[in-house]
Amino acid sequence: MQLIRYPDMAGWPALQQRAAAGEARELEERVATIFAEVRERGDEALREYTARFDGVTLSDLRVRPEEMAGAAALVPAALQAAIRQAHANLEKFHQLQRPVEERIETMPGVECWRRAVPVQRVGLYIPGGSAPLFSTLLMLGVPARLAECPDIVLCTPPAPDGSVNPIILFTAQLLGITTIIKAGGAQAIAALSGGTESVPGVDKIFGPGNRYVTAAKQLATRYGVAIDMPAGPSEVLVIADETANPAFVAADLLSQAEHGPDSQVILLTTSDALLVAVTQEVERQLATLPRREVAALALRESRAILLRTPEEMLFFSNQYAPEHLILALEEAEVFSVGVTSAGSVFLGHLTPEAAGDYASGTNHTLPTNGYARNYSGVSLDSFLKKITFQRLTPEGLRNVGPVVETMAEAEGLHAHARAVTLRLESLGN
Amino acid sequence: MQLIRYPDMAGWPALQQRAAAGEARELEERVATIFAEVRERGDEALREYTARFDGVTLSDLRVRPEEMAGAAALVPAALQAAIRQAHANLEKFHQLQRPVEERIETMPGVECWRRAVPVQRVGLYIPGGSAPLFSTLLMLGVPARLAECPDIVLCTPPAPDGSVNPIILFTAQLLGITTIIKAGGAQAIAALSGGTESVPGVDKIFGPGNRYVTAAKQLATRYGVAIDMPAGPSEVLVIADETANPAFVAADLLSQAEHGPDSQVILLTTSDALLVAVTQEVERQLATLPRREVAALALRESRAILLRTPEEMLFFSNQYAPEHLILALEEAEVFSVGVTSAGSVFLGHLTPEAAGDYASGTNHTLPTNGYARNYSGVSLDSFLKKITFQRLTPEGLRNVGPVVETMAEAEGLHAHARAVTLRLESLGN
Repeated sequence: MQLIRYPDMAGWPALQQRAAAGEARELEERVATIFAEVRERGDEALREYTARFDGVTLSDLRVRPEEMAGAAALVPAALQAAIRQAHANLEKFHQLQRPVEERIETMPGVECWRRAVPVQRVGLYIPGGSAPLFSTLLMLGVPARLAECPDIVLCTPPAPDGSVNPIILFTAQLLGITTIIKAGGAQAIAALSGGTESVPGVDKIFGPGNRYVTAAKQLATRYGVAIDMPAGPSEVLVIADETANPAFVAADLLSQAEHGPDSQVILLTTSDALLVAVTQEVERQLATLPRREVAALALRESRAILLRTPEEMLFFSNQYAPEHLILALEEAEVFSVGVTSAGSVFLGHLTPEAAGDYASGTNHTLPTNGYARNYSGVSLDSFLKKITFQRLTPEGLRNVGPVVETMAEAEGLHAHARAVTLRLESLGN
Repeated sequence: MQLIRYPDMAGWPALQQRAAAGEARELEERVATIFAEVRERGDEALREYTARFDGVTLSDLRVRPEEMAGAAALVPAALQAAIRQAHANLEKFHQLQRPVEERIETMPGVECWRRAVPVQRVGLYIPGGSAPLFSTLLMLGVPARLAECPDIVLCTPPAPDGSVNPIILFTAQLLGITTIIKAGGAQAIAALSGGTESVPGVDKIFGPGNRYVTAAKQLATRYGVAIDMPAGPSEVLVIADETANPAFVAADLLSQAEHGPDSQVILLTTSDALLVAVTQEVERQLATLPRREVAALALRESRAILLRTPEEMLFFSNQYAPEHLILALEEAEVFSVGVTSAGSVFLGHLTPEAAGDYASGTNHTLPTNGYARNYSGVSLDSFLKKITFQRLTPEGLRNVGPVVETMAEAEGLHAHARAVTLRLESLGN
């Protein structure tokens, strides 16, 4: 980690800089080709790309009921129980987000209301690889189900033997998701964005992925499909005071760093002793970590920064807008009131980021790359649209009609005014 | 209007087609140049573009307090009263959308909550031209103020004499917006996206505009700025039965058509008599409309479609996903329950779209171009982020910790597990 003591405020923006995404042109062109192929040739193209990238030729792109039925037996009982508990916690927290229909008379006879309606067709993308991200499936599947989206399509890449990881299948089963497509990468996103013979097209695509998936999601927006949010590497900012436990802080920093070499890790503290102790702990813990090579790469670009006051730490953090913010502080809750930009916040010494990553109940699909300034994490809202309604009675028309006529005339929109005038005249005023 | 009777369902997608946006490459390049210039040279570039496009050389890019102070005197009293009433109605409806902080223990000792925090810096863009869109300023300003966004920046192009329309200034004053920049077009969006000497940079940009503004907003998203929603021409779909008044329906269709030659207007009905009567009324009313040339162009691409059943009309409408949906039906409220995709819905024979465009209380910034399938209109939510929080007590850590350990190990993320294990061990289990 880079140790920086009392940096000049003018130098803060440089310290808040994320790693640049690098040259994207070539990648974008490859993704555009995949899109064009899949949108034109459907399943045929999808099969070809799956053969090329996942090394398996599939006859059936959909997971069959027999495959689903066999999944649970392959998942250890302790893991099944843990997934069930996480599912229950997520349901509890996301259920609170269910909106109430608001109805009001803004003037007598002018009734307005707003109704939440599920996005009708949603696609959930879950990356494959050595570690199946079943936790992400929970994070997306729970709100999708609570929102009552009628069509939920899950895409995940198959293993070289054509199977889908049983933990993913078990989790899908728990969620009641039955449309599961064996496809990954940009080709899966392309299929979801326009539909193929086997893959239903969707209105909104959720989920993480590598640079190809991210570029593909961006491209999908050109075809009228919405996405959950812009994506970037995962990141954590820890704010710690002298009461923090260096071993806990180091473990939290490492649990971010192990995600990937481009993970972002920042420590802010007012205690020089803690600064030193944490960096020593990081080295110590790193040595015994299975993913230590990945974590070490991420740590090279990571910063431990000594600041003068809690106010400085808060200001720095809000400016940086971290995806995850850990408040390893004596007075974490008081401090948290000042947080204006962060994805999810972890309070106190006993709340590791890992709790929210898996099972506390909050969602782990969060804005990265500074987008916490203007985006929220995934929630029930992400799967709902709000439609407004209004109805005027004769009295309502008499009350609001003249207001509309006056404003429409002032904006030079006479047909707007006339739509009111004709109706007012019909009331025989 | 094009009259179409009982079209084959296979032909519906063609009837639901919006006009294509046309070749955008050249426009995008021009906008990219403007962006590069303004982001590099700031106010200087902004002044040059304003001289070129708005025909005025400004010394001061900001509206001065004297200009604000003089505005009200130039706005007729009746219009002032109308704007105040619309403001009050909008406040009433949007106030209902204020979220309540949700707090829950998902397991004993695992407390989770979600807090709404305003987007800190928002930019509102209001186009200029002959008709100042003060109604749009109300639609954006009311939720921005209710959300308590600390920094609200209004950009609007100046007239050739360097002034800003007094109705805009009066409305801004009513809203308590004091940072008003005399700049329009892509250059205004560029300034908001990065900031200049006179223009504060913002986190999110709202508001309508021509193709340049739309392309500029799209480009702004590449610089980490969020936008309200993708934009397209305004549109209405009217669903009418035999109880509808042809003159009202015609007036509603025309009030959409007068917006611009690319406005989209569709009528669905099960009554052939109404179909004929409405198209005759449209011709009749068109003749006396000041903006008849614009409206006539829009009507050329508009469709009046006869269908067989209410179910067919509902299905067609949900598939089209109109920005505005008028239900000119005897049983409008019953019918409205089936609406799954629309921006704002107007129920019954006495509720013209114009009511919602100006003063009913609902927001008129709505998803166009089929985006009602996956986006909501602007609301208080658009100016808020939701940050999640969690805090574990020792009991909470004992409850959820093992769940997290099991799941993290199964995903191969050992540092995640260790962040929990170290803490559990510290409790001396």
